[in-house]
Formats: sequence, structure tokens, C-alpha cells
Amino acid sequence: MYADLETSALEALTARLERDFGAMKARGLSLNMARGKPAAEQLDLSMPMLSSVVDSASCAAESGLDCRNYGVLDGLPEAKRLMAVFLDDIPERVVVGGTSSLTLMYDALVRLCLFGTDGCAPWSSLDQVKWLCPVPGYDRHFAIAEALGFQMIPVALTDEGPDMDAVESLVRDDESVKGIWCVPQYANPSGTTYSDDTVRRLATMECAASDFRIIWDNAYGVHHLYGEPGRQSRVLDIGKACDQAKNPRRYLKFASTSKVTFPGAGLAALAAAPENLDEIKRHMGAATIGYDKLNQLRHVRFLEDARGVAEHMARHARILRPKFELVARKLEESLSDVGGCSWSTPQGGYFVSFDAPEGCASRIVELAAEAGVTMTGAGATWPYGRDPRDSNIRIAPTLPPLHELDEALDVFVCCVKLAYARKLLESRR
Amino acid sequence: MYADLETSALEALTARLERDFGAMKARGLSLNMARGKPAAEQLDLSMPMLSSVVDSASCAAESGLDCRNYGVLDGLPEAKRLMAVFLDDIPERVVVGGTSSLTLMYDALVRLCLFGTDGCAPWSSLDQVKWLCPVPGYDRHFAIAEALGFQMIPVALTDEGPDMDAVESLVRDDESVKGIWCVPQYANPSGTTYSDDTVRRLATMECAASDFRIIWDNAYGVHHLYGEPGRQSRVLDIGKACDQAKNPRRYLKFASTSKVTFPGAGLAALAAAPENLDEIKRHMGAATIGYDKLNQLRHVRFLEDARGVAEHMARHARILRPKFELVARKLEESLSDVGGCSWSTPQGGYFVSFDAPEGCASRIVELAAEAGVTMTGAGATWPYGRDPRDSNIRIAPTLPPLHELDEALDVFVCCVKLAYARKLLESRR
Repeated sequence: MYADLETSALEALTARLERDFGAMKARGLSLNMARGKPAAEQLDLSMPMLSSVVDSASCAAESGLDCRNYGVLDGLPEAKRLMAVFLDDIPERVVVGGTSSLTLMYDALVRLCLFGTDGCAPWSSLDQVKWLCPVPGYDRHFAIAEALGFQMIPVALTDEGPDMDAVESLVRDDESVKGIWCVPQYANPSGTTYSDDTVRRLATMECAASDFRIIWDNAYGVHHLYGEPGRQSRVLDIGKACDQAKNPRRYLKFASTSKVTFPGAGLAALAAAPENLDEIKRHMGAATIGYDKLNQLRHVRFLEDARGVAEHMARHARILRPKFELVARKLEESLSDVGGCSWSTPQGGYFVSFDAPEGCASRIVELAAEAGVTMTGAGATWPYGRDPRDSNIRIAPTLPPLHELDEALDVFVCCVKLAYARKLLESRR
Repeated sequence: MYADLETSALEALTARLERDFGAMKARGLSLNMARGKPAAEQLDLSMPMLSSVVDSASCAAESGLDCRNYGVLDGLPEAKRLMAVFLDDIPERVVVGGTSSLTLMYDALVRLCLFGTDGCAPWSSLDQVKWLCPVPGYDRHFAIAEALGFQMIPVALTDEGPDMDAVESLVRDDESVKGIWCVPQYANPSGTTYSDDTVRRLATMECAASDFRIIWDNAYGVHHLYGEPGRQSRVLDIGKACDQAKNPRRYLKFASTSKVTFPGAGLAALAAAPENLDEIKRHMGAATIGYDKLNQLRHVRFLEDARGVAEHMARHARILRPKFELVARKLEESLSDVGGCSWSTPQGGYFVSFDAPEGCASRIVELAAEAGVTMTGAGATWPYGRDPRDSNIRIAPTLPPLHELDEALDVFVCCVKLAYARKLLESRR
């Protein structure tokens, strides 16, 4: 362990690491482990989809409706049926809309700000709206909350989901706490999957705000690396839990096919309680006549149903598994005797969460950039980009081909070691 | 003219019209002249577009970018170039977003409500927001204003556009008047095209509200029935006019390919001054990573450029001209000796505006429905659905095949005559 080294040994080690790092820089790499993008090989899996809607006959929905023309606000029945698979819900509670679940979430919160819900004051009329943010978390969630002027409150993400003791205590007496971000399965970036107990506590907890909302971003609900878990082991459905707890309007569920078919050209959808759905559709009906039904048809014909989705995701998993296993192996091999570091070994999703020794994350990301490896910015996994321990780094291993990922991880590991060694030396001066 | 008939003659006429109407009802028709939808024959024109993006090679943008993956917030450069044709602007001022220009307008107004602009208070924080609505106008524009709680003020639409004396007087001293809906070319439903003088006055008029916005919905900018007018005769560009008037932020331009390729599966876009664009993109960047670039590619490859768009729209016009000419001929032949009615003869767009004798519009639409012909609801062309004269009816002749349109117009004309004759008789009792 570096921390246990005599200072002279640490100095020698640092000098060697500086040389290694210099050699890496000299290679002039240009590699990227920053964003959770599918690899080109994964995108190829969905190419047949694009040929499924090409003549006037193939533009007809099951009902015979011509999908090339106006109409159908909340999605074709067959598209709702498909997206219900991703949302773990019934088609009747699904709205299919556009290509981005992020936009659906943004719009849902904008409506709560501007119009309020169920007789409660619009949030834009309140002095303050507070929002719970499990950390480490998803930077684009935090960006939405920041854009809407919410005061973000970090809550630790444990192995079972958000620290529910903390959450319960924050929501109980403070009416200005209006909601929480949740990625219940294979959370971004840690890969954490919420326990049943966590889901039940979220559904049943006493909230001062009657318009408290759980934004249930099930972005990775079918993104298993090791086969779909049995029905019993899936994340407990927040909808059923909220219904049982007699808090039926507390949740809004979101999902998309961005990492199933094509990011930016997939289907996004939400599911909610009937009362929330009515409200959402009423507002949506002012904003649009309907979403892209041709793209809905493409997806329905290509993915078909739960079985089709599972088979397709298994093909993704075959491409992704070696990448995640490489990350786990490299980090274990290279860092287990360094100390001070820890990382997640997710069973699905798109990220690995890496915790560097305190005060090292920014330096590591900077060093990696110098050596031609782009990482997600340090701090990105925290509200306002401020990680108080300067420790967490999100590793996104999906985009680069395996040999590039291998090179990028070599650089990353070297940067972790060097930053940590320098830090230790500084602290002894 | 009906109004000149002796009462006994009017009674005989009414009895005959009742019999005609009864015979029409007995035919059990089911025809629709309600919404501005393209006919299936028009949709067929764009089918080749759907086959233009089918393999990984064809998913590459001009830059080489893989359009199947995340990225590009405001549109591919080539998509901006294409949509600039519809927006009569330069690509640098264009944002391509989603499939619905209605949504782009709604979102733009939502942002002004929630965030404000340029240091002005968010509109949601004001006691009142007033909005100018040229009448007759587009019901979905009015629905947006109503949803956002704006108080709508009708302004007469003259042959040259909105009554500018009225507009200028309304905006001069009242800071709560925040904007105006404009469909500058082939307005919905009258087909009116704004004169250069109207455009200049909109751009230069003195507004009490520094955040006054002209929502320039150029929905029918290329939808000519009789060939594209020469460059000189196009509607004057509101952007250039506002720039010259030193009111560069006053306008937001919108267009889509909904009635060019596929409604609901087309491209929507906006153009604005650089300061407004920066603001819009900043907000958009919180809501999405980017829109459907595969659909952008499809459109670019199919429509290509201004010449391609003009040729494609000429093909639409060949289908639409006989329908609009049938409407004009039928109304002229059947109603010129009835009196009390007037209607527009548009040179483009999707609608004919029909003014029935005062107090007759609702009855006409009801009678037509009884006889199996669905019209746009009476009053729909006015804010809150309230036409004070109960006179205006929007005729949408594009969707039905020619022979159905012919039948539907026979019914409509009969209903106009009967409603008018009944009304005259009632007034004499």
C-alpha cells in the first residue's frame, strides 16, 4: 500500500511513475472513456429496424391507421405495449413520446414548476424547491435540477439505493423538498440496484410535500450484463409500491430505447398513475398533435415484445461483458496493492464508479487528459459538479473498442497511481 | 339573394332545402373536412425518403459523424442548411429540433414564462400576460396561449395581415402585451399573405414590453398552389426587418416539414437572432442531448436543397390545386345568389376561410355533422372558441379524395343555405 511506504521509497516510486506517465504522453493517444455511448458494433445490432418501414403498406399500424399522417397523442397501442416492457408496467399507463426520456423528465418537472399539480402551488411560485440527489449520480439529472433553480441536496447512495434514513428525515418536515432522482437499476455511475426495502420505503415514507415526486429513471432496466434476472429479482416496481402505500401520484417512471436501439433516434416513454397521466396528457395535448409514429412502428416490429427485447439485450451484453470484465481485471490487478481506491463491479448498465483517494480525482482526470484519455469530468457525479472529497470518477467503458479500452485503462491506472503518490508526498512535506 | 325574398318564397325555399337536406342525411355519408391533413396520395410522394437511411454507411453525416449515436444538440449542419430554406434564413441561425414546430413554439413560450429573457421578469411571475391573436386564426395557437394562461386579444386579420393600427395601439402602452401569433404566408385559415408594410410595421412598432415576441409560424412558406413566387414576391423576412429596426430579439421563426414529408414524422426547426439562439440552446441543452439525426439525414437526402423543395412542393400542388379549385367553383356556383356569405380563395396553404351569415356558423356545422360531414368546430378560428358573430368556418379540403370532397361540399352548401334560410325566417317572425 502506497500509504505504508517510507518516504524515500515513495519518492522512488513517484519518479518511476512520472517516467511511465511521460512515456504514455509521448504515445499521442486520443481515447475516450467519458460518455455512456454504445459502441458502433452495438448500433449495428439494430440496423434491420431501419428497413422495417419503407412502403405505404408497412406504414400502417395494427389498427390500420396510416402512421404517416397526424394524430395519436400518447403513442400507438402497440408502442405502448412495447414500452410497457421497459417500464415494467401495463400499456394503459404508458405514454410514448419523442426520442429522449431526459426531455420527458425535463418537461414533467417544467409542468410542475409552471402549473403545479392536484391543487398544489406551481413550484415556480415558491421561494425554494429542494431536490434530493443520490450521489454519486447522473450529471444530466443534476443539470435539469440546476436549470430549474432547485436547491440540490446530496444523499449517499448505499449498496441498497439512497440512504433511506437520510431521505426519510429530509422529506418528513420540509415541505420545500419536492422530489428525488432515482436510477433504480444499475444506477449511473455505480451500477447499484435498489433493494425491495428501499423501494418500499420510498413509496411509504411520510412526505411534508403532498406533491413530492420520485423521478424513477429506469434507464438501464433491461441492460443486464449477465442475462435477465428472474422475475423475482427485478427491482420492485415503484408504481405498485406507491399504489399499495396509498401514495399513487408520488412517482413518475421513465425509460427509453436510447441504449437499446439508437441514442437520439429511439423511443422514450413514461408511465404514471391514471390521475398523473390525465394531467400529463392534457398539457402534452397543448404542445403537440403527436409524436413520430413511424419510429414507433420501427421499434415495435424490430423488438416485438419482452422476449424480443431480452434476446436483443443479450446480444448487447455479449459485446459489453468483455469491456466491463477488462475494467474489473485491470483495476484489480493494478490497484489492489496501491490502496485508497475502490470501485464498483456492476452487473449491468453503462458505468463503473471509481473512488480515488480523497483529493485526487481532479488531478487524475487532468493527467489522463494530458495523456490523451478523456474521462468524465471529476465532480460530474455530484450536484453542481462539486464532489466534496474530490474522489469520485465515472468510468464509461462501452464506446471504445476493446484494445482501445485496454490502452485507456493503462493510462488511467498510471494516472491514479501518480496522482496518489504525489498527493502522499505533498502531505508529508 | 335570400334576404330579398318575400317571406312566402323564403318558406317555400326552406321547405325544399329541408327535403334536400333530408335526402342527403339518408345517404349515410361519412366525410371529413375538419383538419388540415395531407391526403394519402401526397404522403406517397415522400416514400423514397424512408429508404435513404438503412445501412451503417448511410447513417453517416457529411462530417462522417455516426448519426446513430448521441450528440449534436441543435441539428446537423446539413439539416440546418435544409431547414434554412423553409425559414428563409441562414443555417447559422437555425436550430433543428424534433418533429413538431408546435412543440418548439410551446417550449419557447414556456421558457419565457419560467425563465424570462434578457433580464426581464419571467412571465409566470406577472399578474397578467396578454397575447394578440389575429382572427380568424389557428386553434392550436390559441390552445397554447390558453394553456399558458395568457389573456387572448383578438385582432382582425385584413387582406394585408393583422390590422396594424389596432396592433400598434395595443402594444404601445401596455407592458403586459407580450406577443402575437403570426402565420405570415397563406395564413390558417384565410390564406392571407402579409404585405411588406405589415412586416415592417411589426418589426418597427413601439412596444411597451421589451420582451415582446412575434411568433412567426411560417407553416406554409413553401406551400404554393401556383408555383413558387419569385424571390421578390415572397413574404418579407421578419428577421431582417427586425434587425433593421434595431429590435433583433423581437421575433422567433418556426417551420416544419409536416406538410412537406410526413406530419408527426417530419423535421421542425426554428430561427432566431444570435442572442435568442444562445438562450434557447442553453435551455435546450438541459432538456436533451440532441434530436433524431437519422430523420435529419432522411430529409436532407430526400429534399436536398431549395430547388429540391420547390420541385417536391410542385408535386404536392398538382394534387391540391384541383381540390382548392373545386371548393372555389362549388361555393361560387352555389352561393353567389344566396348572399350573406364570403370566402377566401387562397393561393397556397391548407384552408379556405368561409364567413357565413352572422349567427349561422354553429348551425351549419351541426347540420353538416347530422349529414355525415365533419367540419372544424364553429368558433375554432377564434380565441376560446368564441366567434362573436358566429360566422367563420374553416374548410379543410386537402384530406378527402376529390370525389368525396365534391360530395362533402354539396352537403356543406346545402347546410349553409338551409341554416341561412331558417335564420331569415326566424328573424321575420
